[in-house]
Amino acid sequence: MTKVLIDCDPGIDDALALALAAGSPLDVVGITTVGGNVDLPLTTANALALREFLGFGDVPVTPGSAGALLRQTVRATAVHGAGGLGDVVLPAPVRGPSEGHAVDFIVETLRAAPGEITLVAIGPLTNIALAVRKEPRVVEWAKELIIMGGSYTRGNHNPAAEFNMLADPEAAAIVFEAGWTVNMLGLDVTLSAVVTSDVLDRMRPLGRLAELLVPAAQSYGVVRADGGPAIHDACAVAYLLDPSLFTCVPAVVDVETAGLYTRGMTVTDFKLRDRQANALVATSLDVKRFWDLVLGAYEGVAGRLG
Amino acid sequence: MTKVLIDCDPGIDDALALALAAGSPLDVVGITTVGGNVDLPLTTANALALREFLGFGDVPVTPGSAGALLRQTVRATAVHGAGGLGDVVLPAPVRGPSEGHAVDFIVETLRAAPGEITLVAIGPLTNIALAVRKEPRVVEWAKELIIMGGSYTRGNHNPAAEFNMLADPEAAAIVFEAGWTVNMLGLDVTLSAVVTSDVLDRMRPLGRLAELLVPAAQSYGVVRADGGPAIHDACAVAYLLDPSLFTCVPAVVDVETAGLYTRGMTVTDFKLRDRQANALVATSLDVKRFWDLVLGAYEGVAGRLG
Amino acid sequence: MTKVLIDCDPGIDDALALALAAGSPLDVVGITTVGGNVDLPLTTANALALREFLGFGDVPVTPGSAGALLRQTVRATAVHGAGGLGDVVLPAPVRGPSEGHAVDFIVETLRAAPGEITLVAIGPLTNIALAVRKEPRVVEWAKELIIMGGSYTRGNHNPAAEFNMLADPEAAAIVFEAGWTVNMLGLDVTLSAVVTSDVLDRMRPLGRLAELLVPAAQSYGVVRADGGPAIHDACAVAYLLDPSLFTCVPAVVDVETAGLYTRGMTVTDFKLRDRQANALVATSLDVKRFWDLVLGAYEGVAGRLG
Amino acid sequence: MTKVLIDCDPGIDDALALALAAGSPLDVVGITTVGGNVDLPLTTANALALREFLGFGDVPVTPGSAGALLRQTVRATAVHGAGGLGDVVLPAPVRGPSEGHAVDFIVETLRAAPGEITLVAIGPLTNIALAVRKEPRVVEWAKELIIMGGSYTRGNHNPAAEFNMLADPEAAAIVFEAGWTVNMLGLDVTLSAVVTSDVLDRMRPLGRLAELLVPAAQSYGVVRADGGPAIHDACAVAYLLDPSLFTCVPAVVDVETAGLYTRGMTVTDFKLRDRQANALVATSLDVKRFWDLVLGAYEGVAGRLG
Repeated sequence: MTKVLIDCDPGIDDALALALAAGSPLDVVGITTVGGNVDLPLTTANALALREFLGFGDVPVTPGSAGALLRQTVRATAVHGAGGLGDVVLPAPVRGPSEGHAVDFIVETLRAAPGEITLVAIGPLTNIALAVRKEPRVVEWAKELIIMGGSYTRGNHNPAAEFNMLADPEAAAIVFEAGWTVNMLGLDVTLSAVVTSDVLDRMRPLGRLAELLVPAAQSYGVVRADGGPAIHDACAVAYLLDPSLFTCVPAVVDVETAGLYTRGMTVTDFKLRDRQANALVATSLDVKRFWDLVLGAYEGVAGRLG
Repeated sequence: MTKVLIDCDPGIDDALALALAAGSPLDVVGITTVGGNVDLPLTTANALALREFLGFGDVPVTPGSAGALLRQTVRATAVHGAGGLGDVVLPAPVRGPSEGHAVDFIVETLRAAPGEITLVAIGPLTNIALAVRKEPRVVEWAKELIIMGGSYTRGNHNPAAEFNMLADPEAAAIVFEAGWTVNMLGLDVTLSAVVTSDVLDRMRPLGRLAELLVPAAQSYGVVRADGGPAIHDACAVAYLLDPSLFTCVPAVVDVETAGLYTRGMTVTDFKLRDRQANALVATSLDVKRFWDLVLGAYEGVAGRLG
Repeated sequence: MTKVLIDCDPGIDDALALALAAGSPLDVVGITTVGGNVDLPLTTANALALREFLGFGDVPVTPGSAGALLRQTVRATAVHGAGGLGDVVLPAPVRGPSEGHAVDFIVETLRAAPGEITLVAIGPLTNIALAVRKEPRVVEWAKELIIMGGSYTRGNHNPAAEFNMLADPEAAAIVFEAGWTVNMLGLDVTLSAVVTSDVLDRMRPLGRLAELLVPAAQSYGVVRADGGPAIHDACAVAYLLDPSLFTCVPAVVDVETAGLYTRGMTVTDFKLRDRQANALVATSLDVKRFWDLVLGAYEGVAGRLG
Repeated sequence: MTKVLIDCDPGIDDALALALAAGSPLDVVGITTVGGNVDLPLTTANALALREFLGFGDVPVTPGSAGALLRQTVRATAVHGAGGLGDVVLPAPVRGPSEGHAVDFIVETLRAAPGEITLVAIGPLTNIALAVRKEPRVVEWAKELIIMGGSYTRGNHNPAAEFNMLADPEAAAIVFEAGWTVNMLGLDVTLSAVVTSDVLDRMRPLGRLAELLVPAAQSYGVVRADGGPAIHDACAVAYLLDPSLFTCVPAVVDVETAGLYTRGMTVTDFKLRDRQANALVATSLDVKRFWDLVLGAYEGVAGRLG
């Protein structure tokens, strides 16, 4: 079974991504948290609540970096609510986080099983960058790195930058320059992974899980027949489960760290010129098959939760 | 009749834009040249040859800035050929350029007819920026400013920047911050103004003019049934003639001057937030009507040239 | 007699520099003004008043650029007072400025006498940069370029940048990269050209001229036995009159335009490495001989004024 | 006895700083290494050799970061030789480095004795920055932070930047912005801590220690009667031993990370303006007393070594 370590900042779409992982044939070896959509204490608390609600058992949840590597960061409370999960109310978790720091957890977990574990990073890349800098061999040890972040066309937090990249441009630069191939699920595809009325109708009957999914979707954006909130982060887990859902193109991605208006932009060159690709960039999504996969997994979780 | 001053750097698509102007009900009050696609002596020589070939009469051609405002610039000889007009061979012009400098010509021409003359700038914006700095009132005196340049999605010379903007980012920043509304025809629309086989077939019968149009198109890119070279600059003249060909959206455009990978990018914010729009950005083109307009004008020129 | 064109932004120390020029064997062929210490209308008005007060006869005063080349600029009203001349009150000038723009005046004056005229620039370098861009041959036509500006150690307006450079970093970059040798009189030497009590005592008996010099000095800083206000701009004129007052060292000077904290800094490399010097940078001043020269000239003016 | 943790990149002057520590009443709780003057394997090997040669007993030596936080770094092999210790030849060390990573060692050592241990950092600040990011409370736990690095006037590796800062500008920015007061011993004072002929003459009689000191000094620069190589790093240890050797002034220090020519510059504002000082910056050194302290300590080591 595919082993995966998920670095996240829940976050509504992180919650929907974790729910997808919970209902899929994955061996989740750990969940690490990072400050991102909301502050680290909240992303950690949300990860803990989700671990128990979604039935992740004794998968360790390890908190990591509170802020960006270099300077001030941004938050997305306007999107995710003050607590980070919008209108979703989960039972308070019984167990707390693991001892230690996410960066050490990532390094040691990968060291212990080189070539076996895929990293899925769906928040700012601070933890991943620090792991790379502390132990450069994580780049070899990771089976793959899949991120939700960036865009080769336009940003969301501002015209140039996607939120996860803008929240820590230097970390993103470190990760893209580290020597591995970054599987990049950016806004170019995630903006088509939207919860429409039809999708929401398929979520409603899912019993206890619907108590997470439905208010999550509804507080994340306006659900319409022909549009709705994009559950960006779930795309990264979906890609892990079935890469064939996406068209992906090799590219050289440089992360801008110096611009007046473009910090955090993932400058994506599909022409490669004289450089080697450092990323596989998703350029299209088979939306129908995506939702079949996601809702199928959700049904699995629902069956377990009752 | 609409008065227009055209600042250009011919350049193949500049030639096709000038041909469109020559066949349209426009009063061209002057042509100014700037270093851009090729060096200034060549863009000026090409403008002089085009003036006579296209029958612009005694419209003055005034050379301007050789290079970018701040530092080194780029050239596009790979696209436009060493001479700037690809495989096009025009008769050597009989008359030379006007005395004086394009910047002074722009300032004085606008000063003499405030509110009457539209500026169409289809090369790097060096001359326009210098005119703004030398005489800030040109911003009020110009009836309108229409440029070919920029993009709100992706560049062409590199992933972030369109050629005309990259060739002089500081000049572009000056022009966008000058206080007028820039009508921006960027790659987002100009890349759909392509010479397909059908279009080329309609150019072939145009007598002497076809001797310009056909090799121009063919040396500018591969003409196919479903694609071909984009004649970017002609869009700016077409917009002047019939703005209804384009959908345009107000936006705040900032030109990046400081990035490592994003110099010359036109960072376009359609949300405006708390700022006032400084640009009307074209977002779509009615391709069929565009070609009807352009080819109709070309027929007019052809009739005159024989 | 040495021909000189003075580009200035009076400015208290500009006034003291013009007074030095007025009392020296110089042929001042023109005075151009630029926005700097205060806004352009004030620097021009001050230049006009100084022309008549100091007896410059019919030397033309031509206004130029109001602001910086690229973006917003800074002013030094805290130092020079709202009007630009501190507590100095001069008779209202009878004559107005010349027609035309400083940039054109600079270009045409140099063109008419190539190799004969020294440019002395004691304000932001906007006019000089625009002249270089409009007519690159001014670089050859100028006999020499002497500027007051920059520093190879520390700034004054902020820790990194000297005021004239900070007021237009892009213009400064253009000027230093233009191909001539910039004679740079920076804070490193100008800060030793201070009006002490002794110097002030030598100014007091100078009749009508003292009505300019004394309040100028006193409103520019605190005059003490062992220190006082630095009359930066006068150093540039003194250098023209007698370069032997200064030690000068060849250097490569790059003007920073992109830093977060260092815009406008003149990064000065005396080691040259593999590059050619573009500046002669003053590193020490013979203060005693400087004041003998300056006060001698002031006495000459005073004798004329009564 | 003052407890100190020394983060270093030996490096000739690091060796002389460690020798000073070895002969002083200090409790050295650990030595951590970082890539800097030479690559990490060499700085670690040199630290191990110095530990045994200088008699540091079982003080742990823990290797840390190999390169800069963000992008490429610089090396100073031209100054320190390919091996990092110039012409010095030390006996091969018997024992190896400690397990674990310098960043963890720093965090855990400070955590175990909050308020007791002074950090002395005499290489690039990569380890310190990573410690701050991994565990922000190190800022409170450290008794003090003393660094050799930066300058408020001019750099050494280039005109703007001192080597340690240039080798990792982003790390330096993190450290200066972390909330503690950085005691900054920059080039402004360290360039006066030079080994003159007199100083060298006092080193020669120091027995086995002279076998380190003399070739170290001689391969580090030309020893003259009135000048010689500056042993920068020893200033940081001297400051810990006797701050009264230095004049220090509170300042706001910003580390430039974005300039074209100024990356790594420590922009130092003594005026504070509306900000709070984040550094105590050394502005002068009592050279005589410095050498008395240093040579006295060296004599102590020499007595022990024989």
